[in-house]
Amino acid sequence: MKFDVISTAGEIKEERLAGRTAIVLDILRATSTIVTALACGCREVAPVETVAEALAILEQRPDVILGGERESLLIPGFHLCNSPLEYMQEKVGGKVVVLTTTNGTRAIRRAAAGSGQVLIGSLLNAKAVAREALHTGRDIVLVCAGTRGEFSLEDTAAAGIIIKELHNLSGDNSIFPGSDLAVAARRLGEVYVHNPLQALYDSLHGQKLARMGLAADMEWCARLNYYDLVPVYQGGTITVKH
Amino acid sequence: MKFDVISTAGEIKEERLAGRTAIVLDILRATSTIVTALACGCREVAPVETVAEALAILEQRPDVILGGERESLLIPGFHLCNSPLEYMQEKVGGKVVVLTTTNGTRAIRRAAAGSGQVLIGSLLNAKAVAREALHTGRDIVLVCAGTRGEFSLEDTAAAGIIIKELHNLSGDNSIFPGSDLAVAARRLGEVYVHNPLQALYDSLHGQKLARMGLAADMEWCARLNYYDLVPVYQGGTITVKH
Repeated sequence: MKFDVISTAGEIKEERLAGRTAIVLDILRATSTIVTALACGCREVAPVETVAEALAILEQRPDVILGGERESLLIPGFHLCNSPLEYMQEKVGGKVVVLTTTNGTRAIRRAAAGSGQVLIGSLLNAKAVAREALHTGRDIVLVCAGTRGEFSLEDTAAAGIIIKELHNLSGDNSIFPGSDLAVAARRLGEVYVHNPLQALYDSLHGQKLARMGLAADMEWCARLNYYDLVPVYQGGTITVKH
Repeated sequence: MKFDVISTAGEIKEERLAGRTAIVLDILRATSTIVTALACGCREVAPVETVAEALAILEQRPDVILGGERESLLIPGFHLCNSPLEYMQEKVGGKVVVLTTTNGTRAIRRAAAGSGQVLIGSLLNAKAVAREALHTGRDIVLVCAGTRGEFSLEDTAAAGIIIKELHNLSGDNSIFPGSDLAVAARRLGEVYVHNPLQALYDSLHGQKLARMGLAADMEWCARLNYYDLVPVYQGGTITVKH
């Protein structure tokens, strides 16, 4: 079995995903938020690419919660921003969340166009998502959303930490890197696994969020294996795998 | 002062290089070979992109040495392949070498189209090239040749080791990463600096060379700071900076 890493949503190509299991990662903050929302009783998350799409859905279904960000800020007319700490039981319990973010929702939709199965990963559910990916029996591709089309340190470090979980669960000799980027990610996983928060503070996007006063979000997103839950994207919507 | 990393020749864009000092890296094996040849008395190295270009030069100037590879093998009609161990004094002393390789020579020519100055880096001259780059006073971009258009572990690890040399020479607080990839490279430099050969064996291209019986080349290319010499590319040709 092989594992590979794609460093940005823009580099997703169908032939690199065909027949494989994709784990999509946007640590700051889309996939951390999705995992948190579903763990807090949200019924489903529908990732959409544009603000207009989200507002159109609200018009049809006034009971949905609109969440997301542009420039890391709340979108006018939306209920929630992209902070996982906003997606607690009292806000999202039993609800459908429609989410649009700069990098993460695009990566999920693009990954789904090519791969056999799309799982939503984060540090919060690293071990759970690794276990489920192995369970599919397919080659695994860790799809980093990236930041504005560029390599993202926190996504790649998280990919490496999930690769470490894959090795822990399956043994070093049963799963192999498919590219040098996959090897580099594994090494970065070894560097950061004992302090994932450091990867977030080492990243330029994390430093920007910290300057915006969002350090509590970063601490939340860095909680390794806090949830034992795997969100799956299928047919336009994300639900918890049972 | 900032440092940045470009992960493949294909990602070189003029605006990322303009007014900066580029350090081009193709550890396995083009830039290691160039550094070795010049250290062994070669007068100059002219990197060209095609086999036809190289053969045309030989027709005009029968005294040049043609070197390079395609698929890591000797090119028909050429004198030397791309092994640094072939470029010793008795073969290249006093001579002009015309070199064409799959990734490295393209990266050098593309970097030259955009940047203020192009230096040739390798593990062999890591400290020397770091010192010279700082001496230019410009922002620094480490340009990894990559392998067939993909991220290369050995080039990125070498970039990270040179970044460590930059920090050692200038202090941590006077030079800053311009991107998350630059931070990741620095971390990989920390992982591999005490055993650079491991980076070569961890890379898929290195594993291929080892299977081809080229382990001696890899050991040579991993000799950290073996030479105190900086090749500079200018006007189509590479000579030693004095």
